[in-house]
Amino acid sequence: MTTLILDTDGGVDDAQALLMLLENGRVPDAITTVFGNVPLAQATDNILAVLAVAGADVPVHAGADRPLVQPPVHAQYIHGDDGLGGAPRPAVSAQPAGHDAAGFICGAARDAAGQGTAVDLLMIGPLTNLALALHRDPGIVRGIGRVTIMGGTLNGRGNTTPAAEFNIYADPEAAAVVFRAELAITLVPWEPCTTHFIEGAALDELLDRIPAGSVRDFGKALADHSRRTHLAYEGQSDVMKYVDTLAAAVVIDPSIVTGRIAASVDVALSPGITRGMTVVDPSGRLGTPKADVVERADGAAIDAIYRRSLGG
Amino acid sequence: MTTLILDTDGGVDDAQALLMLLENGRVPDAITTVFGNVPLAQATDNILAVLAVAGADVPVHAGADRPLVQPPVHAQYIHGDDGLGGAPRPAVSAQPAGHDAAGFICGAARDAAGQGTAVDLLMIGPLTNLALALHRDPGIVRGIGRVTIMGGTLNGRGNTTPAAEFNIYADPEAAAVVFRAELAITLVPWEPCTTHFIEGAALDELLDRIPAGSVRDFGKALADHSRRTHLAYEGQSDVMKYVDTLAAAVVIDPSIVTGRIAASVDVALSPGITRGMTVVDPSGRLGTPKADVVERADGAAIDAIYRRSLGG
Amino acid sequence: MTTLILDTDGGVDDAQALLMLLENGRVPDAITTVFGNVPLAQATDNILAVLAVAGADVPVHAGADRPLVQPPVHAQYIHGDDGLGGAPRPAVSAQPAGHDAAGFICGAARDAAGQGTAVDLLMIGPLTNLALALHRDPGIVRGIGRVTIMGGTLNGRGNTTPAAEFNIYADPEAAAVVFRAELAITLVPWEPCTTHFIEGAALDELLDRIPAGSVRDFGKALADHSRRTHLAYEGQSDVMKYVDTLAAAVVIDPSIVTGRIAASVDVALSPGITRGMTVVDPSGRLGTPKADVVERADGAAIDAIYRRSLGG
Amino acid sequence: MTTLILDTDGGVDDAQALLMLLENGRVPDAITTVFGNVPLAQATDNILAVLAVAGADVPVHAGADRPLVQPPVHAQYIHGDDGLGGAPRPAVSAQPAGHDAAGFICGAARDAAGQGTAVDLLMIGPLTNLALALHRDPGIVRGIGRVTIMGGTLNGRGNTTPAAEFNIYADPEAAAVVFRAELAITLVPWEPCTTHFIEGAALDELLDRIPAGSVRDFGKALADHSRRTHLAYEGQSDVMKYVDTLAAAVVIDPSIVTGRIAASVDVALSPGITRGMTVVDPSGRLGTPKADVVERADGAAIDAIYRRSLGG
Repeated sequence: MTTLILDTDGGVDDAQALLMLLENGRVPDAITTVFGNVPLAQATDNILAVLAVAGADVPVHAGADRPLVQPPVHAQYIHGDDGLGGAPRPAVSAQPAGHDAAGFICGAARDAAGQGTAVDLLMIGPLTNLALALHRDPGIVRGIGRVTIMGGTLNGRGNTTPAAEFNIYADPEAAAVVFRAELAITLVPWEPCTTHFIEGAALDELLDRIPAGSVRDFGKALADHSRRTHLAYEGQSDVMKYVDTLAAAVVIDPSIVTGRIAASVDVALSPGITRGMTVVDPSGRLGTPKADVVERADGAAIDAIYRRSLGG
Repeated sequence: MTTLILDTDGGVDDAQALLMLLENGRVPDAITTVFGNVPLAQATDNILAVLAVAGADVPVHAGADRPLVQPPVHAQYIHGDDGLGGAPRPAVSAQPAGHDAAGFICGAARDAAGQGTAVDLLMIGPLTNLALALHRDPGIVRGIGRVTIMGGTLNGRGNTTPAAEFNIYADPEAAAVVFRAELAITLVPWEPCTTHFIEGAALDELLDRIPAGSVRDFGKALADHSRRTHLAYEGQSDVMKYVDTLAAAVVIDPSIVTGRIAASVDVALSPGITRGMTVVDPSGRLGTPKADVVERADGAAIDAIYRRSLGG
Repeated sequence: MTTLILDTDGGVDDAQALLMLLENGRVPDAITTVFGNVPLAQATDNILAVLAVAGADVPVHAGADRPLVQPPVHAQYIHGDDGLGGAPRPAVSAQPAGHDAAGFICGAARDAAGQGTAVDLLMIGPLTNLALALHRDPGIVRGIGRVTIMGGTLNGRGNTTPAAEFNIYADPEAAAVVFRAELAITLVPWEPCTTHFIEGAALDELLDRIPAGSVRDFGKALADHSRRTHLAYEGQSDVMKYVDTLAAAVVIDPSIVTGRIAASVDVALSPGITRGMTVVDPSGRLGTPKADVVERADGAAIDAIYRRSLGG
Repeated sequence: MTTLILDTDGGVDDAQALLMLLENGRVPDAITTVFGNVPLAQATDNILAVLAVAGADVPVHAGADRPLVQPPVHAQYIHGDDGLGGAPRPAVSAQPAGHDAAGFICGAARDAAGQGTAVDLLMIGPLTNLALALHRDPGIVRGIGRVTIMGGTLNGRGNTTPAAEFNIYADPEAAAVVFRAELAITLVPWEPCTTHFIEGAALDELLDRIPAGSVRDFGKALADHSRRTHLAYEGQSDVMKYVDTLAAAVVIDPSIVTGRIAASVDVALSPGITRGMTVVDPSGRLGTPKADVVERADGAAIDAIYRRSLGG
């Protein structure tokens, strides 16, 4: 299995996605952090906390604290002031292995290319680190394998503005750089994240069957926050949606994808009601390389991956 | 039944839509023409020709020959050089009743308001005439009933650019003026137009059962062009899509709508990949009045309306 | 002398400009009003009041109450709540001759063209009425002579935003329509308006030499407001700037222009820091017809024209 | 004297500016190169060639080969296919000291900050390298002294589009990042570059008085190309304009500036006729830190600095 770098902005579903990877045997070789759901320092702390909860030892490289061009935006109203919905966290003594995420990505990709292999990326925050890495060393595309991105929308219905999804809206220019690069991208847009969820009752039942323990209890706290947030901001049903976790599940087992389209993807950069929106173009007229855009996945398989992420 | 004004850019499906209205007992009280599928003069000629074919006497008022701000674009590659796919047309002696469509709309709406009633509008071209009427006399909104518009997209997949549909793309500023006005709008976007069609074989069978005659033969020529265009530009199947005709069918019988959402609609005006795209926002955050956006309709009912439009 | 229509948004310097025309023998044949410095109804009232002060009988046609696309903005912070800086005004019984300024312009231009002549326009507010007239009847360009516009900037330094001048900023799309039309335009941009002024002491002396009377007293009140506004918002010197009055002076006596360039002019329409800015392009690469852009004028001549406007 | 880094896109006036620095005793401690007038590799080669001509040993770090967001544009039509107007160049064996200009800038600034000093920057190409350095390590602003930039316009009259100057137009987003950062910027915009020049006859006389030699002959070839280009593209007079050389002269002797304004500067990023234009805002409403914007300089002093750059 190729090397994997997880790039994350350290929110609730980022923590869940990381647990998924750790507990499903797809431990990332390194993690890079980025501003997004919370400011960079908080995101980095959060990832170190999740690693501590899981007893995992993965080097963490802090990255961009701001977008390429615009001022930063964050989403604590969704992820809680601490970005993890207030989930009790252990004392953490670990420190970041570095503060140059883009440089780390460049080095890893260059090393991989030198060995005739490639590093896969799972991007579940704003795409700033990867954009900066592509600027620092455009040749790294040869050492990058599959880039799985949670971000954007398939149909122009956003979660942050009427048209834009958060990860892209938080740095539209970086996203444009990434989508226009010669990369093999799997895009998990917002729409399948709204149709893949686990209902509250099923979640309670699932959690009840797993013995208490640091991972299970932490996972439960994250899940509870996710359910509350959904009720407060997004819908009237008691569900926990799979968002970054859907992208992680696709990395863990690509065979779970049951519906996809090949499409050029680009980002609306002009000011106005569509800024930060992805345009998904099966015709290819946009001119960007065609990405593998996920429309649907196998819900039972995702549930199973999620259950294992809690130690179940 | 309230007064109805049809506003049209005189293309193939405009002609079909007009036949639908005429042959289904929903004869418009007046028709206004606009640049769009073809230049204004051609659009006006085409509508006069359709009226001649059907032996109908409806006053036609020519309107805008250009968009509010940008230069005009047309779509002869879809509708043929003459805008009617080369369908044989009778000699036409009728002349337009006027050359001030916006003024005519203002007068009709003012008259209606004065009588405590309202005029309905069916808009199947760029929205320039209505935007200009709203500028000339903003108070006319009190005399305008339901405005049924074929235009835009529900999901950001256009037919002219990857994100934009032709009628909106041809005059985005006019569309913005209309969607932001205090009007009761029914929007028939592009998506249901791509899922409501009649297959070639069924169409042939339907046409075979109708005795030859000017309307039937003209309608057959339009249908044949529509099928050829679909094969050439849009798909690999032999189908005739309902586009402007879907909007006309909704006006003829509003009960055919089987799926709808209430949503604010606005138009992306900034230059770039989303210019001319509609953003459909059920949350209402866009701030425009909520429109009735059609998602699905009863296919059999549409087929029946279409059959009658051919004299069947 | 050709027919003249004054199009105005009824602010302090609009009133001064109208007095200039009336008292210098260049009485406009008609006046059209537009939203701008103040809302439309106030602008119309103000113009009727100025006419009453001067005992002039000029038909006034109310026009657009809003821009082509964006929501209206006004500038009472400059012109006072009433748009005339609180200058005492007579009771006015006159009513507008009509409420269709664009239609009136179309008719006047058509009539002029029919007689082989042309109507000149002096535009000292947002350009909405003329843009709507051009939409209503594009052929009117043949009956329009010189269009003198106060608006925009020569050098990208605005009075409303860092880059945009008020009259253009208030309706950038209308301005774009006008600058792109086949019209003979004289543009009086903001810069010469900032370098042509009369100092407070000279103004007092000038006023003192004119016997009291309705025009002189009204003009003094306008001038005093203009001086106060300049001190409050624009500079530290006691001066009265010539703004709309500079454009009026150029119409009254075109020979006062001492510096000019021929340049294509277009308007930045995209959202952002340059929206509503004019780009003045001597190279012609913008593609719009070259306008006669005023850079400097004869200050003593302007002062003389101004003095006469007060009955001096 | 503080450390100086020259950042350059290796065109004709870049070469002249580098000669100015070298021959006036303001030898840069390092040079970073960037795409711009010519592609990156050519720019780097050109700078190495100029150093060889002058017998100077300055480490050169290659930097960005593309803008932050948009595709690259170059200007060989101004600078010749080789970027140096075909000036005969020596064989060059030197290689770049590195290929990470942004990283080099970060290191130099960090080192300077650590020693309680600061590094000055002279930026005479697109601002991409500095923008990327600011992204890599935002804290470097503490180790950066004065940033002198040739770029943008004072009055919205560009040399590349009607509104935009080349260095900013070539990477508007990078320029925005730089102007918005907490940096002490001296901006040398296009306008003073058009009013500071040396006439052909004076230049010939000046060159004739300097004995032949590698620097003088190379400088003559550059000057001749500059004169030819001016005649071909910019004006009808035989002059050599000071452009990047004006910025270099300001760094060599800041006292030559005779006219300046303090102004916020930002960049128009939206698509359209102002994209890449600088807005210079003395009022500070733009919100960016105020830069020292050069309006005029002492022509005789510049001429003297230029003469010395040729060995005179």
